[in-house]
Amino acid sequence: MQDTAKRMELVEALQKVLAADRVTMNETILQQHSSDESYHKAHLPEVVVFPENTAEVSEIMKLATYFDMPVVPYGYGSSLEASVIPHQGGITIDFANMASVLEVRENDFLVRVQPGVTRSQLEKELKKYGLFFTVDPGADATLGGMAATNASGTTSVKYGIMRDQVRDLEVVLADGSIIHTGNLAEKSSSGYNLNGLFVGSEGTLGCFTELTLKVTGIPEHIMAARAEFSTVDDAVNAVITIIQAGIPIARVELVDEEAIRQMNVYSDTTYREVPTLFLELHGNEAGLQHDVQFMEEIVTDMNCRQIEFETDTAARNKLWEARHHAAYAFIHNHPGRKQMVTDVCVPISELAGAVKDARQAVEASGLSGGIVGHVGDGNYHILLMLDPNDSIEVEKANKVNEQIVGYALERGGTCTGEHGVGTGKQKYQKQEHGDALLVMRKIKRALDPDDILNPGKIIE
Amino acid sequence: MQDTAKRMELVEALQKVLAADRVTMNETILQQHSSDESYHKAHLPEVVVFPENTAEVSEIMKLATYFDMPVVPYGYGSSLEASVIPHQGGITIDFANMASVLEVRENDFLVRVQPGVTRSQLEKELKKYGLFFTVDPGADATLGGMAATNASGTTSVKYGIMRDQVRDLEVVLADGSIIHTGNLAEKSSSGYNLNGLFVGSEGTLGCFTELTLKVTGIPEHIMAARAEFSTVDDAVNAVITIIQAGIPIARVELVDEEAIRQMNVYSDTTYREVPTLFLELHGNEAGLQHDVQFMEEIVTDMNCRQIEFETDTAARNKLWEARHHAAYAFIHNHPGRKQMVTDVCVPISELAGAVKDARQAVEASGLSGGIVGHVGDGNYHILLMLDPNDSIEVEKANKVNEQIVGYALERGGTCTGEHGVGTGKQKYQKQEHGDALLVMRKIKRALDPDDILNPGKIIE
Repeated sequence: MQDTAKRMELVEALQKVLAADRVTMNETILQQHSSDESYHKAHLPEVVVFPENTAEVSEIMKLATYFDMPVVPYGYGSSLEASVIPHQGGITIDFANMASVLEVRENDFLVRVQPGVTRSQLEKELKKYGLFFTVDPGADATLGGMAATNASGTTSVKYGIMRDQVRDLEVVLADGSIIHTGNLAEKSSSGYNLNGLFVGSEGTLGCFTELTLKVTGIPEHIMAARAEFSTVDDAVNAVITIIQAGIPIARVELVDEEAIRQMNVYSDTTYREVPTLFLELHGNEAGLQHDVQFMEEIVTDMNCRQIEFETDTAARNKLWEARHHAAYAFIHNHPGRKQMVTDVCVPISELAGAVKDARQAVEASGLSGGIVGHVGDGNYHILLMLDPNDSIEVEKANKVNEQIVGYALERGGTCTGEHGVGTGKQKYQKQEHGDALLVMRKIKRALDPDDILNPGKIIE
Repeated sequence: MQDTAKRMELVEALQKVLAADRVTMNETILQQHSSDESYHKAHLPEVVVFPENTAEVSEIMKLATYFDMPVVPYGYGSSLEASVIPHQGGITIDFANMASVLEVRENDFLVRVQPGVTRSQLEKELKKYGLFFTVDPGADATLGGMAATNASGTTSVKYGIMRDQVRDLEVVLADGSIIHTGNLAEKSSSGYNLNGLFVGSEGTLGCFTELTLKVTGIPEHIMAARAEFSTVDDAVNAVITIIQAGIPIARVELVDEEAIRQMNVYSDTTYREVPTLFLELHGNEAGLQHDVQFMEEIVTDMNCRQIEFETDTAARNKLWEARHHAAYAFIHNHPGRKQMVTDVCVPISELAGAVKDARQAVEASGLSGGIVGHVGDGNYHILLMLDPNDSIEVEKANKVNEQIVGYALERGGTCTGEHGVGTGKQKYQKQEHGDALLVMRKIKRALDPDDILNPGKIIE
């Protein structure tokens, strides 16, 4: 925004609504809200606000509409596709002060939270009730952010994605009005499915101020395993066979040799540096024994070199912690460089071909990159490290991403399985959605006619 | 429509697009398309068309827009809330000639079907591949109709509802354009969730011409049981405890003594006429044994009088057939009367109170009624028999329905768990959705500005 007078007028108006210290133009804080965890270019907001309740968010929205000012909701900043970057400046709403677990309805397997609650914070609270929240994206993101991008992660192969867990959202719309998108019932056929529409809308249709989420009983028994292979191909084929055999696996993660190498350095582990599957099964003990035996037969048939089981909680936690830190390991081990993460998801029968094609693309580019992925649902990531100021490197990485996306879209896949569109996946939207993109535009225009809600994201 | 000349002009235009014999004003056929399976008032369409492909549906839509004529999609006619009744006349599109299973991608657990395929037809086809389609609403509805109302039924407690199974829809919009709402990937965060929005839209946003659905491997082992109780309260409390104990039940149906009585007459069964739970578990044998034992302990604690297991396929099929025919049993045993079926869904902790309140309401009304329900997800139905021409009886039934809905909405429930809104649940939309209804209206207006798509349904 060029207009300093307008900016000051807005800030004064905001300070009448919120306490003055929760409306800031402090350079460091603006800086903190200018970027995400990826290679995307940073951009400063004009002002950052820290509301404490829904009424304040509503007032902020009314002012944004009045001043025709962009609004960007901000959780933890762990976006990988620039969803939280205020490319057009404006107001960034940080939900750090709306971070309470409001209610645990343990008998209904429901929890009501504010958008700033982080995944680990919720986990800690639910443990008291023998419950857990199934969506585990790796990053310790906020629940609001996870709903905004329809996050998923390691456990979605069994429990589903973020959209599957959302029973109700309290949403503040562009004009400041407050709606609820759902209810507390397990299912509903009443009216249009606003829950599903707002989940994944990345702040472009409204701001979430409360979420009611489905939670799950901690499984009676958990069995984790690590299976080592000689080739990525063998590992992927093992996954495909496990899925097609109907084994109700709770997690199955592929980590290639390069990613294992980075993990070992970062997490101080000593896993053999070969393509590896990290697996987990949940259930009752008798049923699990049966499934594990079946699974062991399958991976052996698929040239598994070694499989090791971990039933001990501490060992299991260490294993998953290392896996979760894979992306950070790359970042940590490549100081000064930024990460581009591909995120296609393909039908499971296309997975082996897709991963093979992706590896060839990475090798041809000469970039450093590893593969990690929630391969049980056909979703995998190539972690590419690049210098965002080196235009040739950025160009190379973009080409790799384009080839991977093109391969997936030609086979009925999607350009983003779980990270969202932001600006990073915008150029693929027309190819992926065709004329359905016009329908999305109509919905955006109907609900945000002045284009103040996270403008320029998802819909160009 | 009063304008006969306009009607004839439309019919002639339609006959240029479709073969003449697939455009009909035959009185018997109009009559067949004037009602559903419930008490709602019938209304004739102007013309019924039987397209054979998507291009024809697109041409029909263009003509509907040109002639400003309502369009109502029609599958099997098993709606219970008037979703298929053409209250404003116009064109009814019957999908009887678009009823092919187009593709089974067995390795991807996907099937692509035309909207007129019925559930039993799909079942038969999938069996060849060791697969089944999980959504089982009782009626042998079409898949297009099931997606249009977001149907669910007996198995949703384990496998989810219709919306959870839809990966992609081919949809013809009001202007005749053709879009795809999804893709073949297991999950996606790309763009707005149009799959979820169109599922449950009851033909008010577009006409489905193809559906890609998730299918599931037939379970290794199935165990069915029938548990008899002295009171509905005991039965409901047993369900609540089973769910809260985390037993991964695949079906749990409550049938009260009156409904058992009607079933026995209709299905020639001899079940004891007491409140009964019909249960089913799916999994591997070892795991099931464990779960069944746990479940048996729970129902015994909850004053179960007797529990009988059926592992034999024929006995199990007979049990579920009888359950599925419960609604038809009431209709068959009450010649000349029509059925009103309540359909609330409440949080599981509110179920016992809701059912008790509903029974009192029915008793106070003096109407004949029974309870059946997919109680594992908090959804239950009161089947009320009434003479639609007896205004006092209709009034009484409406009052019962209103009380039941009011009770559910006050406790975070929904007025319709699986039957949809049609016109029957319209009067509760404002109370249930509040200002979210305005958002739904905006979406409807954005996608159907001339209000030709099943006008007057869901959104008034």
